[in-house]
Amino acid sequence: MFEDKNKKPLSELSQMGEFGLIKHLTQQIKLQNKSSVKGVGDDAAVLNYKDKQVVVTTDLLIEGIHFDLLYSPLKHLGYKSVVVNLSDVYAMNAHPKQITVSLAVSNKISVEALEELYDGILLACSNYGIDLVGGDTTSSTSGLIISITAIGEAEDKDIVYRNGAKENDLICVSGDLGGAFMGLQLLEREKQIFNENPTVQPDFSGHDYVLERQLKPEPRLDVIEMFKELGVKPTSMIDVSDGLSSDILHICDQSNVGCMIYEEKIPIDYTVVGLAQEMNLDPTVCALNGGEDYELLFTISLDDYNKIKDQKRVAIIGHITADKGNFVLVDKNNSTHQIVAQGWNALSNKKD
Amino acid sequence: MFEDKNKKPLSELSQMGEFGLIKHLTQQIKLQNKSSVKGVGDDAAVLNYKDKQVVVTTDLLIEGIHFDLLYSPLKHLGYKSVVVNLSDVYAMNAHPKQITVSLAVSNKISVEALEELYDGILLACSNYGIDLVGGDTTSSTSGLIISITAIGEAEDKDIVYRNGAKENDLICVSGDLGGAFMGLQLLEREKQIFNENPTVQPDFSGHDYVLERQLKPEPRLDVIEMFKELGVKPTSMIDVSDGLSSDILHICDQSNVGCMIYEEKIPIDYTVVGLAQEMNLDPTVCALNGGEDYELLFTISLDDYNKIKDQKRVAIIGHITADKGNFVLVDKNNSTHQIVAQGWNALSNKKD
Repeated sequence: MFEDKNKKPLSELSQMGEFGLIKHLTQQIKLQNKSSVKGVGDDAAVLNYKDKQVVVTTDLLIEGIHFDLLYSPLKHLGYKSVVVNLSDVYAMNAHPKQITVSLAVSNKISVEALEELYDGILLACSNYGIDLVGGDTTSSTSGLIISITAIGEAEDKDIVYRNGAKENDLICVSGDLGGAFMGLQLLEREKQIFNENPTVQPDFSGHDYVLERQLKPEPRLDVIEMFKELGVKPTSMIDVSDGLSSDILHICDQSNVGCMIYEEKIPIDYTVVGLAQEMNLDPTVCALNGGEDYELLFTISLDDYNKIKDQKRVAIIGHITADKGNFVLVDKNNSTHQIVAQGWNALSNKKD
Repeated sequence: MFEDKNKKPLSELSQMGEFGLIKHLTQQIKLQNKSSVKGVGDDAAVLNYKDKQVVVTTDLLIEGIHFDLLYSPLKHLGYKSVVVNLSDVYAMNAHPKQITVSLAVSNKISVEALEELYDGILLACSNYGIDLVGGDTTSSTSGLIISITAIGEAEDKDIVYRNGAKENDLICVSGDLGGAFMGLQLLEREKQIFNENPTVQPDFSGHDYVLERQLKPEPRLDVIEMFKELGVKPTSMIDVSDGLSSDILHICDQSNVGCMIYEEKIPIDYTVVGLAQEMNLDPTVCALNGGEDYELLFTISLDDYNKIKDQKRVAIIGHITADKGNFVLVDKNNSTHQIVAQGWNALSNKKD
């Protein structure tokens, strides 16, 4: 972290060429899943899902927009790039099985740096049982660009869309919120200090949790497994990538319903509260608008309340109303506020 | 073509936001394929391939590396971005059914320009029966970035890999080669003239064919259909994206064989020959190393010779030998040369 990433390339990318590089980076890959028939090395990968549904999602990550190489270790970046796609597949109540990875890299980057990135990509694959089956590698005129597509499977009857939330359904969220955002604030603060005086070492003591939330998030496979164990099928689900406020609105819009969320029920880690206060930020606003937590936000039928109520990894934060277009936050003083989408908008190129 | 693409944005992208933009661009999409269960608008798309194999391929196209907006009309660029992926699926003897499209755009680009790009994307989808089922839209710190993943289907028994070529198999190629490369040379020449004196209008008369080959290639669905009609299954296949020399070496490497190709058999359009000579280039070298023709290069068993010999769209250019690692070109004077991969290497950032 805070290293000079522009060291002289130890190995020349251009000498290796596109095919040499792909071979070098992918030679260690062994396919794990039965559904992976043919991986890297042909015009396309071949998969066999038999009678299951196929789930496909894709994300494009751009240096300077989605990550800053000054404080994103490349291994973490590779890991996170995979994880954000797996999270989208889990949010369908489906299981990711394969990814394709496309990279655009500047000639300034070394093969060793790409190996680090790949180490992170392959670690995420290993941790979640994913096969890397294809991709594309090219040069970039500017920074690093990572495009990952994840492919997964589910039984037709198990898939959960965003559009199934009904009146009186309970709104639930896994884990806690706002941590990834506070991690980013901390990194940005220390970057500014570092830029003003490179001899000052960044002070991250006591902030491991928020840094990990920002730099190395984990997708909630365990929550999907919990649904299966408990015999619960959410009525709607989305992963919290843009922020709670933005993501609950996606569910409500697509389900044609309203919602009521209680501020005091929103799960926020105590270290997030502490750091937010230290930085003069409202922890609830961080949780609502921060994004990138990759928790699962879902609704369940009231009938399933007893099954879920003692699950420590899940918080019930509100309920769905029939009042379409009315998105209410009840604060700690029992005052009500309208929830508006204020999450990450990658097109405006800043956090709102 | 040769227009100023940096006109003031007619509609502000940032006002529209990511979700507004995606909605605006995708609202006209109607799913056509039975296998497309759920398209744009959830965490992931859902597909149903029943008992068929799933084929997945992906490509990343970067402004300044793969295309130049000075002479690539956006509609053509959108069309070509889709087609290069479809070509990879056809090269598996499979049928593409869905694509995901991820775009990174600078804030300088207008919504109208993106609509043009999307018009081309959707025209290719319409022409080849493809559903656009998902993607990602974000901002870019530099130019336009397009990442497309194509998903298709095939019966297990029909899929053709690169690794099945056997001794004495005939090497065949569809259409003709070198045209896309000559189109690029012509565009680069006229760009240079335009840059030196913007009042001089580019002279493209008589060069429609090479321009179309470069700017709006068509993938060879018709050749895949021909295989079915004739009852021919190639023993190996690849699409000509990097250049004949590079692509035949991929087949030979993966099949553990050698090859012998006859210069006089390589199909080159007479307009390509004429333009190459005018520009002091060897037409055969253009065909061997040019790339981007998106023709199908394949091998068939000698037993299938009678089925294929009268097909005008296919040229038999040589045969496979048992001499692994020996890749021979027999020129018009009956001299032999070693074929070396000299196709497009996107990492060296130039044509070799």
